[in-house]
Parts: sequence; C-alpha cells; structure tokens
Amino acid sequence: MFKRVAIIGLGLIGGSLGLALRQARAAQHLAGYDPGKGVGDRARKIGAIDQSCSSLADAARAAELIILATPVGAMRSLLQQLASLASPGAVVTDVASTKAQVISWAEEYLPPTIPFVGGHPIAGKEASGIASADATLFKQCIYSLTPTRHTSPAALQKVATLIDVLGARVRFLEPPEHDGLVAGMSHLPFIASTALMQTVAGNPSWDDASLLAGNGFRDMTRLAAGSPEMHRDICLTNSETITRWLADYISALSTLRDRISAHDTTLIEVFTQAQKQRLAWQEAQENPKKTE
Amino acid sequence: MFKRVAIIGLGLIGGSLGLALRQARAAQHLAGYDPGKGVGDRARKIGAIDQSCSSLADAARAAELIILATPVGAMRSLLQQLASLASPGAVVTDVASTKAQVISWAEEYLPPTIPFVGGHPIAGKEASGIASADATLFKQCIYSLTPTRHTSPAALQKVATLIDVLGARVRFLEPPEHDGLVAGMSHLPFIASTALMQTVAGNPSWDDASLLAGNGFRDMTRLAAGSPEMHRDICLTNSETITRWLADYISALSTLRDRISAHDTTLIEVFTQAQKQRLAWQEAQENPKKTE
Repeated sequence: MFKRVAIIGLGLIGGSLGLALRQARAAQHLAGYDPGKGVGDRARKIGAIDQSCSSLADAARAAELIILATPVGAMRSLLQQLASLASPGAVVTDVASTKAQVISWAEEYLPPTIPFVGGHPIAGKEASGIASADATLFKQCIYSLTPTRHTSPAALQKVATLIDVLGARVRFLEPPEHDGLVAGMSHLPFIASTALMQTVAGNPSWDDASLLAGNGFRDMTRLAAGSPEMHRDICLTNSETITRWLADYISALSTLRDRISAHDTTLIEVFTQAQKQRLAWQEAQENPKKTE
Repeated sequence: MFKRVAIIGLGLIGGSLGLALRQARAAQHLAGYDPGKGVGDRARKIGAIDQSCSSLADAARAAELIILATPVGAMRSLLQQLASLASPGAVVTDVASTKAQVISWAEEYLPPTIPFVGGHPIAGKEASGIASADATLFKQCIYSLTPTRHTSPAALQKVATLIDVLGARVRFLEPPEHDGLVAGMSHLPFIASTALMQTVAGNPSWDDASLLAGNGFRDMTRLAAGSPEMHRDICLTNSETITRWLADYISALSTLRDRISAHDTTLIEVFTQAQKQRLAWQEAQENPKKTE
C-alpha cells in the first residue's frame, strides 16, 4: 500500500495508472498534475486521482512515488525541477517508451537521495488523452524496468509493487537493449503505420479508396492515430536505432517490390515464411510459459 | 431464393459464403467442390454445404449460381472448364481481390450463355481455411461488383441478391479502378505487414524482442498470417499497381527515415496530419451516411 503517489501527466497512461491504483485501493492518496487546461479536473472527476494539483511542486510534495507519464520531451525539465521539489527518499519512475535518454537525464539531475527507476509499460490504444483512460489497460501487459548500477533494491521494490498492483508482468532490461528492442517492436510499427496512412490518404484516389477499407486497413493504420507529440519525442530520443530498423524495413520492402514487379512466383516462399513466423509468435503469446 | 448454388473452393471465404446462405435459408441446395483432401467433407459437416462433390462437373451441374472462391491463380482453368460444364443461363461470379485479370479470362473462355459477374467482398481474418469459416463474415462489409458492358441486368441481379442475403453493402466499380483502389487499401497493407514481420523476425534480437510485443505489433503483423497462395496470386495479377503503391510507400518511409535521422522536430507535423487522416477516416466509417 502506498501512502502518497503523484502522477505527472494525465493522458491515457497517467489516467489509466490512476484508475488502476484506485481500483486496487493501492494508494491512500493520489495526487495528479497536468498542465493541460481542465485535464486535472477531468481526471479527478473520473476517479483517476484524488486531488488535481495546480503545480508540479504541490503534486510532488510528500509523495513517496512520483510517476512521470508525460511525453519524453517534457521529462528533462520535470527531472530538473524534481531535484528540489521531491522529498528525500521519494522514488521517481517514468513510463516513456525510450529509456536511455531519460535515465541519463535522471542521473544528471536527481540527487542520490531521490532514486530513479526507468519503466515502460507496453500498453496503449489508438485513442490518447484522459477520456480514454482505462483501469484494465495494464492487465497482463509487459512492463519493462531498466535498473542501472545506481538503482537501489528498495527503489526497485517500490516500482515492482506498482507493477504487481497493475496486474502487469515485469521484464528487466538494460536501457540500450530496451530501446533497441522497442524500436523494432513498437517504434518501427508506428512509423510503418503512419507512412501507410500518409501514402493512401495522400493519393488522389483516397476519397474512393477509403470506402473500400476493410479490417486489414483498419488494423494497419490504427497506430497512426497515436499521440504525435509522444512519437516525435520517441523519434528524437531513439533516432539512431529507429533509423537502423527503418533501413532494414525499407530494404525488405524494396526486395518485395522488385520481385512483385518481376512477377516472381517464388514470392509464395517469402509469404509462407512470414506467415509461419507470425503464427509461431501468436502461439507463443497464447502459451507464454513455453517461451519464458 | 436460389434453387441450386455451387461454391468452388471451400476456404475461409467459400465456407463462410455457404454458412451465410444456409443460415439465411437462401438456397434449396448448396453444392461444394474443393480439391483439398477432406475439405469438402469438413465443409459439409459444419453445414457450409449440403453436398460435397468430387468434381467441378458434379458441383456445377444444374447450378444457377456458381461462385468461384479459390485463389485467383486457379480461376483461369476453372473458367475454361466451366465453359462446357456449366448449364446455359448459369451465372458465374468470383470473390477474388483482383478483378481485371479474372474478367479477361471469363470473357475469353465463357460463352455469352454463361454470364460472368466479377465480385469482391472486402472481408477476411488472419486465419484461412474452412475451419475459420463464419456465417457473419460478410455482415456490413463492402462487396464490390465490377460489371462490364457484357454484363446483363439479369446476371447482375442474381449476384446483387447474393450480396443482399449476406448482409453486405454493394459498391459498383470499373475493374481497373477496383484493382487500383484495392491495391492501396488491401494489397499494400498486406505487403507492409509481411515486410514488417520479416524485418523483425529476421533480426538477431527477435527472441528477446518478441517478448516485448504489444497490441500495436499484433495488429501490424496480423495480415502477414494470411494465405500465401492467395497473396502470391494477387501480386501476380495486380503486379503493376501494387508496384506503384509500394514505390510511394517506400518513398514516404525514406523521407521519414531521413527526418528521424536528422532529429527533425517538425516530424510532429507529419504525425499530426496522419493522425487527423486516420481519425477522419474512422469517423466516416462509424457514420457512413455522411460520406456516401
């Protein structure tokens, strides 16, 4: 049970964290802060927080756990401010999709009395914002933690308890390892989805074509509806790795384009292999014990 | 009410057509033919057809409506054979995702007494095969019809009745127009999904990365599990258009790669535009009357 938790940033993730903590009665007091107009009040009204604070200082005061749930770009300044605003002993954690950059800021700005644990719940949906918050968002999701040699067991324990309350499954990774893997599994798919949306909606045929969209198109463009600010920050803080994955993806597409253009009947082998890989992954997802 | 309908090819689409026709009691007799071992029997057992025929000739005999639900590649030979096997007055239709090629075969092989109407229901799921057949697969889906100047109103009426029974929504298009639009909305997304699966599963980090997959990855690779044979045939029969769409997609991705590599903060504008396009499309989907 937490005494006082502060959630900074009350979008889909921050709001869902609050709802889940409340539903589990895991915090005596949940303070929230979001600079967006009316966002804190809305979060309080739907029960995601007990108190909407008008400043970072108010929210952070006396909190034992401070969760940063803003886009990565905002975290640098938040960490700088928390160095003086957070109580000694408070644990700071974040939920950003890129870890190396955030951790380097935390190590630069926070004193040793305010430990930081980098975290990343792999959860989301196309809609962003407090209106989409959902207490069950983290159930069974993978929640990465990226402790470093500076991370104390006590701080790690506090965040592990949070993950337990959320019903998520923890996975420990080195920060650069995390960023490389997530670039392939999450950032690359976002870019692929966005480029697809751009390509079809930018074509003169879009008005007619859009009426022929099926479930495949819907699924393939869902990620493109994600938060632009969050994804810009992800691209800025994980640029090298994402660029590398994109080069691989473009190369695979170019090969397919050449083979399709050449009426290559052996394309079926590529499609069969991708089908097998997808089915094997799905099988492993449905029976996670086999693979862990 | 149809007297005798023949479904040639009893996979996901053929099986689902049979189930839907039976559920609507729209056919007095449903004959089915599939060369796959045991497929016809399984289709009969789940109630997708009344009779599993051992040859195309048996299935086509006396049928007033013959539905080709095989991969496109098999249709050339089927149409050649149906020229002598189908009863005069029988209407032949198909469900292939590419129309120009199938229609040119139909016009080459079928006599005027056996009219052909090209059709394409935009429905599917990741699983293929008779085991995945579903009577509700076509409910509310868009079902394209591509009549030509050779198509009689009576033949068109017969297929329109089928679409009505399925609960689908008909959309009339010129064959090349259909193929161009579907290439962008369906074939390109499949290639994008397959290349993504290839890229991530082909990376040395795949074993670790696969454990970090979230809903985004799941959605973006779902299409890659589709039938390899069907998609090879689609690529072979719609090669030019798909190649053109792929070039546009690769170009969009390359631009994004360059901008991400350059830490371009104005990326947010691209992401915002794609988000708006996706949300507008979704809004139109949910309120179709506004757009039609």
